[in-house]
Amino acid sequence: MSADQKTINAIRILSAEAIQKANSGHPGLPMGGAPMAYTLWAKQMKHNPKNPNWFDRDRFVLSAGHGSMLLYSLLHLFEYGLPMEDLKEFRQLNSKTPGHPEFGHTVGIETTTGPLGQGMANAVGMAMAESYMSEKFNKADAKIIDHYTYALVGDGCLQEGITSEAASLAGTLGLSKLVVFYDSNHITIEGSTDISFRENVKMRFEAYNWEVIVVADGNDVVAIEAAIVKAKSSSKPTLIKVETIIGYGCEAKQGTHDIHGAPLGKDHLAETKAFLNWDSEPFEVPSEVTDHMKTVVAELGAKEDDWNALYADYKTKYPAEAKELMSWLENDYVDGLLDLEGYFDHSGDKATRVSSFEVLQKLSKAVPNIIGGAADLAPSTKSNMVDRGDFSPEDHSGSNLHFGVREHAMAAIINGLTLHGGLKAYCAGFFVFSDYMKPSMRLAALMGIPTIYIMTHDSIGVGEDGPTHQPIEHLLMLRSIPNFNVIRPCDYNETAAAWYVALSSPATPTALILSRQNLKQYDTTGLDLLKGAYI
Amino acid sequence: MSADQKTINAIRILSAEAIQKANSGHPGLPMGGAPMAYTLWAKQMKHNPKNPNWFDRDRFVLSAGHGSMLLYSLLHLFEYGLPMEDLKEFRQLNSKTPGHPEFGHTVGIETTTGPLGQGMANAVGMAMAESYMSEKFNKADAKIIDHYTYALVGDGCLQEGITSEAASLAGTLGLSKLVVFYDSNHITIEGSTDISFRENVKMRFEAYNWEVIVVADGNDVVAIEAAIVKAKSSSKPTLIKVETIIGYGCEAKQGTHDIHGAPLGKDHLAETKAFLNWDSEPFEVPSEVTDHMKTVVAELGAKEDDWNALYADYKTKYPAEAKELMSWLENDYVDGLLDLEGYFDHSGDKATRVSSFEVLQKLSKAVPNIIGGAADLAPSTKSNMVDRGDFSPEDHSGSNLHFGVREHAMAAIINGLTLHGGLKAYCAGFFVFSDYMKPSMRLAALMGIPTIYIMTHDSIGVGEDGPTHQPIEHLLMLRSIPNFNVIRPCDYNETAAAWYVALSSPATPTALILSRQNLKQYDTTGLDLLKGAYI
Repeated sequence: MSADQKTINAIRILSAEAIQKANSGHPGLPMGGAPMAYTLWAKQMKHNPKNPNWFDRDRFVLSAGHGSMLLYSLLHLFEYGLPMEDLKEFRQLNSKTPGHPEFGHTVGIETTTGPLGQGMANAVGMAMAESYMSEKFNKADAKIIDHYTYALVGDGCLQEGITSEAASLAGTLGLSKLVVFYDSNHITIEGSTDISFRENVKMRFEAYNWEVIVVADGNDVVAIEAAIVKAKSSSKPTLIKVETIIGYGCEAKQGTHDIHGAPLGKDHLAETKAFLNWDSEPFEVPSEVTDHMKTVVAELGAKEDDWNALYADYKTKYPAEAKELMSWLENDYVDGLLDLEGYFDHSGDKATRVSSFEVLQKLSKAVPNIIGGAADLAPSTKSNMVDRGDFSPEDHSGSNLHFGVREHAMAAIINGLTLHGGLKAYCAGFFVFSDYMKPSMRLAALMGIPTIYIMTHDSIGVGEDGPTHQPIEHLLMLRSIPNFNVIRPCDYNETAAAWYVALSSPATPTALILSRQNLKQYDTTGLDLLKGAYI
Repeated sequence: MSADQKTINAIRILSAEAIQKANSGHPGLPMGGAPMAYTLWAKQMKHNPKNPNWFDRDRFVLSAGHGSMLLYSLLHLFEYGLPMEDLKEFRQLNSKTPGHPEFGHTVGIETTTGPLGQGMANAVGMAMAESYMSEKFNKADAKIIDHYTYALVGDGCLQEGITSEAASLAGTLGLSKLVVFYDSNHITIEGSTDISFRENVKMRFEAYNWEVIVVADGNDVVAIEAAIVKAKSSSKPTLIKVETIIGYGCEAKQGTHDIHGAPLGKDHLAETKAFLNWDSEPFEVPSEVTDHMKTVVAELGAKEDDWNALYADYKTKYPAEAKELMSWLENDYVDGLLDLEGYFDHSGDKATRVSSFEVLQKLSKAVPNIIGGAADLAPSTKSNMVDRGDFSPEDHSGSNLHFGVREHAMAAIINGLTLHGGLKAYCAGFFVFSDYMKPSMRLAALMGIPTIYIMTHDSIGVGEDGPTHQPIEHLLMLRSIPNFNVIRPCDYNETAAAWYVALSSPATPTALILSRQNLKQYDTTGLDLLKGAYI
């Protein structure tokens, strides 16, 4: 057995053992998906385990977060600094290996996943960030920002609407450096995917303008690597559909939903070890594997050395750009905002959405790394930066994002833009549609990332659109999320201050709740509003 | 000009006039979509304007709810009982013609729409209800339940993830009596759909296993009617993609986003009237149209006469079935629940999700019109009725629904099942994923329909899945929705009582918040739970 194959089996066995010890978890995905994940991490992904925060690393998102042991096994074997002791503590309170991967909690985790589909949309945001920043900073002789974003999704992720939204947008925008592995195992919790999911996924993604590559055997590492190579050179985002056997290695249960989300059981674990010719003690990895991984990790580290040389050259040739890049990464622009001449200057009474628009124009000049947009409501939410271009299918250098009518993916994509690093990302919508965004807003709060939401048309001033568009419980809904700022400014100065709070917050998302109109504009009182329609 | 064509223009002009008078609204869809809507309502849809509640009517859902004036114009012209005075009050407080169509508020409105995509998923629920009830009640010689569900969606609806979820499920289930018009006008609020929506919609829906028919000219009523006829005979759900010109008739603005969501302006309205050869006074409809519509409405009424004769015959031949149908429609089964022998009987301490499961088995016998399921979490949410079959692609007579991992569409689909009439619909999920369902839960509350949500795995007892799966703010989120029952029962009897409340509630949705486990089972205290993992 090759060292590669032995390491793939190590992922399977470590995952199964940790889940068995915890008596809880999802062995199906790690055991079926180990070959694709290992091949990617060892052969094709650009990363340096010794510096998980290397800025130009490829990103890897396990969107199917319940398969967390796959990720923990990888992080352990690739020497990211997740010791075996942590694997033994899988799913225990305060351990480094919780049930679902948590950003900021465990080394090497790019985003928190678990609620399905979120990671896929995060990955779209990361790929957008890469493309945007590469347009800004790269030179013909120095592509200092040049990385791929990989995600691994299961059938569940693909059934979620947020994935459809994100995939359709990614295809429209032509995010060619996004590569998504689809662990196609035909099994979900309730049984065969046939009971609820008979669509032709390949055809659907081709309709989105994706490249789709099918790997017929999830154990065929040669085909997997060839697919990755092909995907990297595609001018479109790529879905690599890998036909796998869920829980591969456990002959008694593989290919059934019994192995999706429950431990193998001691006997079946023993049988699996026998089947995979695995004779190490529990939680032991043979030296053949650890030796092999030392070599792999050293080779991976060399890639950062190459990049460091490239960047040193860049810094010499393009000192201003290098300095600016550092400012983007360190969010240098916000501190000076309060002293910025004219930041609080304005005239007249106006709706706070209009105030926000005016502030945003100042920000678009003062904070070069700000980026954002709306879910087809830019004119209403006043969220456009007039001096910045559009991020369009043809031009990824613009800062105004057009998400389409896809509020949920929008919120998850700005999580991805923020997680990527280097950018201050916002999104905008009618406050009432925070309902559609809530799952991703909550994850931003949980991750402690400073995403920004412009939520307009609060209050009875929403007017004649009626109750479907009238926010009622939404203020309470957002205010009750732990670690989530909700600011409802009353006038221009408070709006400007709220933007400052949002931009300077290190680890908390912020929603700006804004009014549609200012009563003074209409020389009327609130009571008059109740009588009829005002614009 | 034919009377049909003149009536189509009446829809356009009435819509434009009402929007002009309100100085607010969306004329683009009514003007571009009038031919398809009129052709459907006048030529192919089975409905009786004189009895909007006729049970076997075809359902029509305007998923693109911002185009509400299309619906109001139709309801007026088809003599549903929406007088011209109401059209003049478009978008005024307390009028019968609010900005977006509201179920229960205006005659002939099948569901509340506005938040995009919801109507599409409601329609899938309605089509499921029709198919399920037809399996139950129809006889070879008496198809007393035999109606289509029509929906009209725009580009916005198709971008929403909920639409993707619902469409994928509809294709899987083969809901052949679902027909969706896609008003393809290439325009959204921010501009051309090209900026964010370049996917091949036809191919996407074919991937979902839908029939897709393209009508190349939205004014070609012959092609539109032929498409409807073809759709009705398809064995799959059908998308009729109609290429339209948004705001057709207003030459200065048609085909642009300027006419999507703003009044034409007085001058352009006058030009439009001239272009359409319309010379009536504002809010006047020529007698040629009203006379024509009298004939049309009389013909439509005759269809209910035919059905009444069919049903009279059914009643004679199948009195037991007819009586049962009436009981389904009138929700006769719930009143006796509290007196049902054994309803409160149980033994032992158990998690409330287990209690709910036991209650549900009693309900599955006592309440024959109960139907429901989970988003791939039936084993965990204990939401399966063991004595009922599955609603599967091959068999629509089962009562256990498998939604796939599609929480959002699930919640909107049970809205549709409930709105259809005759059924008591529930759905189930982890409480934390109420985040994904919130937009549709809110609409259930707004509509005042008694949908039921089994939300399990509340409290720290959720255990080792970690914070992504731990509900925190969700209880507050749901409790703050007006007209929404949230019950967190403490034991078996409270769970049984909560189910009774949910089933007997006439006009309020109910969430049952249930625990994963009962501490007594483990002979432990809550504090121990904090120390590690329990199943």
